[in-house]
Amino acid sequence: MKLFSKETYKNRRDQLKKKMGSGVLLFLGNEESSINFKDNWYPFRQDSTFLYFFGLDLPGLAAIIDIDQDLEIIFGDNLTTEESIWQGDHTPISDLAYAIGVKNTKPKAEISSYLTSSGDRKVHYLPAYRPENKQKLAYWFSKSIVEIESFVSVDFIKAVVSLRSIKSEEEIREITKAVNISVNMHKKLMHQAKAGMNEYELLGLVTGEALSLGGNVSFPPIITTNGQILHNHNYSNVLINGKMLLGDFGAESELHYAGDITRTIPVGPRFSDNQREVYQIVHRSYQVAVSALKPGIRFKEVHLLACKKLAEGLKELGIMRGNIDDAVDQGAHALFFQCGLGHMMGLDVHDMEDLGEEYVGYTEDFKKSSQFGLKSLRLGKELEKGFVITIEPGIYFIPKLIEQWKAENLHKEFIDYSMLEFYKDFGGIRVEDAYLITENGSKLLGESLEIGLKDVEQIREKYSSQ
Amino acid sequence: MKLFSKETYKNRRDQLKKKMGSGVLLFLGNEESSINFKDNWYPFRQDSTFLYFFGLDLPGLAAIIDIDQDLEIIFGDNLTTEESIWQGDHTPISDLAYAIGVKNTKPKAEISSYLTSSGDRKVHYLPAYRPENKQKLAYWFSKSIVEIESFVSVDFIKAVVSLRSIKSEEEIREITKAVNISVNMHKKLMHQAKAGMNEYELLGLVTGEALSLGGNVSFPPIITTNGQILHNHNYSNVLINGKMLLGDFGAESELHYAGDITRTIPVGPRFSDNQREVYQIVHRSYQVAVSALKPGIRFKEVHLLACKKLAEGLKELGIMRGNIDDAVDQGAHALFFQCGLGHMMGLDVHDMEDLGEEYVGYTEDFKKSSQFGLKSLRLGKELEKGFVITIEPGIYFIPKLIEQWKAENLHKEFIDYSMLEFYKDFGGIRVEDAYLITENGSKLLGESLEIGLKDVEQIREKYSSQ
Repeated sequence: MKLFSKETYKNRRDQLKKKMGSGVLLFLGNEESSINFKDNWYPFRQDSTFLYFFGLDLPGLAAIIDIDQDLEIIFGDNLTTEESIWQGDHTPISDLAYAIGVKNTKPKAEISSYLTSSGDRKVHYLPAYRPENKQKLAYWFSKSIVEIESFVSVDFIKAVVSLRSIKSEEEIREITKAVNISVNMHKKLMHQAKAGMNEYELLGLVTGEALSLGGNVSFPPIITTNGQILHNHNYSNVLINGKMLLGDFGAESELHYAGDITRTIPVGPRFSDNQREVYQIVHRSYQVAVSALKPGIRFKEVHLLACKKLAEGLKELGIMRGNIDDAVDQGAHALFFQCGLGHMMGLDVHDMEDLGEEYVGYTEDFKKSSQFGLKSLRLGKELEKGFVITIEPGIYFIPKLIEQWKAENLHKEFIDYSMLEFYKDFGGIRVEDAYLITENGSKLLGESLEIGLKDVEQIREKYSSQ
Repeated sequence: MKLFSKETYKNRRDQLKKKMGSGVLLFLGNEESSINFKDNWYPFRQDSTFLYFFGLDLPGLAAIIDIDQDLEIIFGDNLTTEESIWQGDHTPISDLAYAIGVKNTKPKAEISSYLTSSGDRKVHYLPAYRPENKQKLAYWFSKSIVEIESFVSVDFIKAVVSLRSIKSEEEIREITKAVNISVNMHKKLMHQAKAGMNEYELLGLVTGEALSLGGNVSFPPIITTNGQILHNHNYSNVLINGKMLLGDFGAESELHYAGDITRTIPVGPRFSDNQREVYQIVHRSYQVAVSALKPGIRFKEVHLLACKKLAEGLKELGIMRGNIDDAVDQGAHALFFQCGLGHMMGLDVHDMEDLGEEYVGYTEDFKKSSQFGLKSLRLGKELEKGFVITIEPGIYFIPKLIEQWKAENLHKEFIDYSMLEFYKDFGGIRVEDAYLITENGSKLLGESLEIGLKDVEQIREKYSSQ
């Protein structure tokens, strides 16, 4: 099992204890997840907060930090002799705990009595996203699964978010590894995609690449000729010349840090004129967003700058019209850019999404907007040095949404619906990279991957017909 | 969504209804499974029994066959307009139901009231293996999650097992597709494995191949230079000349039928003398087992024939001794072959394992043995025409188990422990293919993949140093 140093985990826990002050902190590791029968499992993925503070990448663990008693305990069971015959020798839990600076270990079954014995003291736990962990909490606290959700500890969430949001140098190295594997995955696709192939062939190619480089995918890859479908995990289409292929995928490193890159390429050697124009608008929006990144700026502001750049471009094409500031202010551009400009990235591809967007992306004084478009912006708050975020503007022509808005005459002063007839079958374009917020600005993480229109076309001219 | 014909599903349900006679049959489809936050999902896998009777490969469905009222109902929700903006248009549930011959559909939320309204009539359900489905049952029937398990319907289990055990021609075609993808995966490994590579590189290679051919893996691949570790999902070792590489993996076809093949190859161009001898023993055992396959023979008997062949070979090597029939009768060979000769294969790689081994592999009159070795034999009962099974003998030198038996002087009259000193670091060898039980014997499913010692060495001589 690969780990950071003992000091890394100890420091993280010490900082957490300082922030929390008192109480009992309960951490739930993940279990194996069954696919189609109990013992056929999906690849195990440990909970990210558990990884952050304890690093141990094994199913069936839990941990407690009892701040008042100055105790840290890993709960878990060693393999039985019978199990070790089938599964091979494993390092005992106590040795694993030692490696991350935890002195105490107890069998799994004792967690319930430990929690009971903590009496009236506050036991803090985080939101559970897996059903078996919800069940455990319900059982331990004698509450229903619904009740359990309303007793999560906001203080605990906030403390964890404040720590995990600022990436350390060793974390940045690890994210960079994940990004570099992601770059290799994208290169494979850019070099091997050809008309006539099925999307699933490319799914195999990029997934295989992630695994072969010692990682895994950080989320189910999007590889589609229907880039306008934002949540698309269908891989059944055939690549056709004249269409574009949108690839949004990334790797997870051995220590489970995420990468996440998007490119949109022509299936053939070159984009069509229409595609080229829209691509350039998206790319300019990306550039504007990147150059605005620095500590202190609200990410919502960066998002709106990117939106204005998109709207400006769409105005040049005659699709939008009127005053751009007003258009973006009123959300008219969201017909073409329905989602957010980016998100935090770290141990999760949408970092800490399990802990709640209101804590990760916003603050008590600065809440998320409910306007269409902005309501899908996961991150809005001020950027800080050490944040790792993605920048992923796009333009998507979603026929169903266009029909809906048109029928309602929505934002008519800013949108020329007659022009949209020419873009009904256009699809969608997105580009995405990950940036670290630095002292004075930002830094692209990992090797740079072709993104400029000419660079992308150059690659496709070379490879699309080979 | 790919489906068999409407008639296929109707016929399967009609047969089931005939077998059950009366009552309400409840089928739970699977949900999405979260990885590290709610909306980051493992690849969706529908429940196999749901697939068998209803085919619909979507999360969040359930179905009821109310035999008394002559009703079949699919419970599920169509995408909302908002969801279809993000996820693209989907076929309405009613159209999907029509495609599989089900006339009635209802929203998901109505299942609870339907069950309540069934009053005193027996509601049959199958064992649940996913926590969220256990929770649903507990909620609907106002029982605890533990209680729910004791109320599963044995009649329903037996009826489903009797149907799913006999594979139809279209199922055999589908299993053959899965096997052929599995053969391609193995060829990739046999052609590309080289000293110096990491096991995970090969994991990427074979997983990518499964996906690229439109399938997926049917279980987490075993790719290891430690073949003696039977449940091994570690991929961190480097391939070293002189070692062997055991690959046990297979594909799932688009319709979710499984393939499952094992080969053991030398990392270098040839096996060592020791490896060659043991390989030949395992291969002969495989041949003996295959030639014994036919309707009417108990699979336990085939297993024991294979065990005797293994023991005979081990006696020739001087590792075992004494009367072979007695040795196998007493289970002495299980020091080297700790598991079963094979299992059913169909929609699950261990077909219907969720329904219970006592129903799938044994009968009321013929129960599983508790002897070490035999207790791991998943299938013991009489074979029938239409069964699809795997044949996978092996020889494994597990240091921990050898030490344990030696310390207890176990089966000393049949085992020469001093000889085992020479095999401590040997590892393990297994070969495996899938067979259909035919009228008079059996038939290998899918393209044949090199298995004979010379054939395997010929491939490795050609590729291991390229």
